[in-house]
Amino acid sequence: MSQRRLHLNAFLMNVGHHEAAWRLPESDPFAATRLEHYVQLAQAAERGTFDSVFLADSPAVRADVGQRPAVGLEPTLLLTALATATSRVGLIATASTTYDQPYNLARRFSALDHLSGGRAGWNIVTNATVEAARNFNLDELPTHGERYRRATEFVEVTRKLWDSWEDDAQVGDKSGVWAEAARVHPIGHRGEFFSVDGPLNSPRSPQGAPLLVQAGSSEDGKDLAARYAEAVFTAQQTLNEGKAFYADLKQRATEHRRDPAEIKILPGIVPVLGSTESAARRKESELTDRIVHGYALERLASTLGIELGEQDLDRPLPDDLPGEDRIETAKSRYTLVVDLARRENLTVREIIHRLGGGRGHRTFTGTPEQVADTIEHWFTAGAADGFNVMPAVLPAGLDDFVDHVVPILRARGLFREEYEGRTLREHYGLCRPVNRFAADAGSASRS
Amino acid sequence: MSQRRLHLNAFLMNVGHHEAAWRLPESDPFAATRLEHYVQLAQAAERGTFDSVFLADSPAVRADVGQRPAVGLEPTLLLTALATATSRVGLIATASTTYDQPYNLARRFSALDHLSGGRAGWNIVTNATVEAARNFNLDELPTHGERYRRATEFVEVTRKLWDSWEDDAQVGDKSGVWAEAARVHPIGHRGEFFSVDGPLNSPRSPQGAPLLVQAGSSEDGKDLAARYAEAVFTAQQTLNEGKAFYADLKQRATEHRRDPAEIKILPGIVPVLGSTESAARRKESELTDRIVHGYALERLASTLGIELGEQDLDRPLPDDLPGEDRIETAKSRYTLVVDLARRENLTVREIIHRLGGGRGHRTFTGTPEQVADTIEHWFTAGAADGFNVMPAVLPAGLDDFVDHVVPILRARGLFREEYEGRTLREHYGLCRPVNRFAADAGSASRS
Repeated sequence: MSQRRLHLNAFLMNVGHHEAAWRLPESDPFAATRLEHYVQLAQAAERGTFDSVFLADSPAVRADVGQRPAVGLEPTLLLTALATATSRVGLIATASTTYDQPYNLARRFSALDHLSGGRAGWNIVTNATVEAARNFNLDELPTHGERYRRATEFVEVTRKLWDSWEDDAQVGDKSGVWAEAARVHPIGHRGEFFSVDGPLNSPRSPQGAPLLVQAGSSEDGKDLAARYAEAVFTAQQTLNEGKAFYADLKQRATEHRRDPAEIKILPGIVPVLGSTESAARRKESELTDRIVHGYALERLASTLGIELGEQDLDRPLPDDLPGEDRIETAKSRYTLVVDLARRENLTVREIIHRLGGGRGHRTFTGTPEQVADTIEHWFTAGAADGFNVMPAVLPAGLDDFVDHVVPILRARGLFREEYEGRTLREHYGLCRPVNRFAADAGSASRS
Repeated sequence: MSQRRLHLNAFLMNVGHHEAAWRLPESDPFAATRLEHYVQLAQAAERGTFDSVFLADSPAVRADVGQRPAVGLEPTLLLTALATATSRVGLIATASTTYDQPYNLARRFSALDHLSGGRAGWNIVTNATVEAARNFNLDELPTHGERYRRATEFVEVTRKLWDSWEDDAQVGDKSGVWAEAARVHPIGHRGEFFSVDGPLNSPRSPQGAPLLVQAGSSEDGKDLAARYAEAVFTAQQTLNEGKAFYADLKQRATEHRRDPAEIKILPGIVPVLGSTESAARRKESELTDRIVHGYALERLASTLGIELGEQDLDRPLPDDLPGEDRIETAKSRYTLVVDLARRENLTVREIIHRLGGGRGHRTFTGTPEQVADTIEHWFTAGAADGFNVMPAVLPAGLDDFVDHVVPILRARGLFREEYEGRTLREHYGLCRPVNRFAADAGSASRS
């Protein structure tokens, strides 16, 4: 336990994870397209020696475009701009395996890794909305199973492309040999979804391969994570659920012959901080009071695959819900919401307030000391290797966390005082992958 | 004529456009993946008040990977990094319509335009190598005609997506209306290659639409340019060819009911500068002497669709060439090389030396005064609206041009003393496009 340290990721989301954050007087409603807003956030995370910052993404406009900030710049480009404004913090971009091609995606993440000096990470998603499908020549969302089969093959192809140049393939011998062609490898991939000859047209990047991240918690999602993910973002409402998820995923990784220490599990936490408990509660109320119930009802109904109206606000959820196996979109989100409602016997209005903070992630309202306590508790109890910090309001919530929670975690010896490594993999305590095509790859160890 | 000004683009290519540039003692053979190298180039172009910098691209590794720098970072990411290191110069990235999806590409260029404050441009290419096709699930290159049909539809979809948010759709009214949903438009595109519902998930960018650039000179390429391009990069070896191309393309634009002034034509020029003519010739020889004839022969043979060996070096091209209509790859490149060889009765060795500088672009070796003279001559004779400057060696060749040629062009009143506008469109004297979905679009003029 003496060596084990927390990992912290800052999940950057416009003006905050609370759906009503944009309505606060201090929030800039147009921050989503303002580089200086994101520079401020990334620099705050770096000041707090966070392992990484992270951007979610979906290639479609939000259905509730009128009601809240519904846009976002393409994450690999935005993170490239942030790479030039920071020097250590990791940069994790979400990108879809359903609506892209491995060659294009492998190039973008290789470029981000080169341009940032080894700080790139890829959050692998399959995208669960029909709106996205209809931007890419499809009428309907491909099935959950098909999306995950494609995702698995996509990741395989991408990893091969990242290995297609051996580290020392570029020699730059001015007598006329720029590269050793024998150390630049075609990948010759032929599969169900992709045929890709390779090699990639950029040399192996500083990290060898960008960090692989996964965030879905369906059975297929957990299997993908167990095979490939090096960090996992997850929504867990209770310590017991968190411990069960943690144990399950580490076990699955072991079944794939991986060292369970090489898969870092980071539950989401939406901290709402105040110098006293009542100050924190007041801050929470400022947000809850600004939720527009009509829109929140529509969104909850869509998650659950049912109809809901104003008349349902003060009732519990109906008994006859469709069941996770009937849901083709975000299965794990469905189950989380239903479990939360049943466990705490919540009304629809109460569910909406609980979900307002971070779409099912755990909201924790309290003092910096209390937030540090819960983080330490989950970390030492075997429910987390760290946390995906999702401030309800940005930039203020991230500044508060960095200025008031991080110092406590450092004083307790749980979190780094300064960066020890230069790359994202080094921050997460992960090795640089061995290149499968290198002559000595068979004999080298993974760590 | 008093108002007409030159436009200059700096075509950034690793350590220079001459194929042997990397072998010079001063060249960094690993510059392709070094951000600081490209920052230095972009800042030099901005110091010279160039309209733009430009990156070529192909989603495949060069066939001659062993013999010369064969890699490049993905252009939209690299230009995003350069956006943060500059404030005025335009940023033009090449991207493929054959191997991408309009929604993904529209997002990346929208993001580059937002992040750069309105400096993004897209060089539309269809990609002409089977190596690229084989990285994207195809066995063979799609035909020239199919590639250009797809390109035309791709551009249409992309332009619709860029228009899908009206400029004032974001209102940010904190009473609960973040955007006027009625001003965010689905595009409902259904075509031969694409079905895209839209809208885009980012608001309209500072330029309304990134600048559209085109560079192929086949019949299909010229038609695409006449319809959509606002700047055209072209390879023209002689003034007469340049005048014919210029007149033809302006005429074609007129046939598409466009103002011919809204399509800027920039032939490529590879300047090899010296303070005297003989100093310039010596610099040229340093490069020519470093060409490896074996590799150059292979490449020429591939362009022409024939076999060539060392025994052909001092002979003219064979009489029985296949003809442009037999070429499915880069048709205009084929014709340029054949015409050059026939017109000047060149041997294969001489062709190789002439092409070494810039793959068929016009090499001009001389003093800054002589380079300025030829630029002015083409500009006033109706062969060019400006030039695509392709230094044989980088960064030195760009610095030389900025420090020694630009001042002459300014002194003659041909080129700006300082930037007058902030966006790439403003540099090229082009209007911000009217949004097709805006209520008043029908009555507004285009300029």
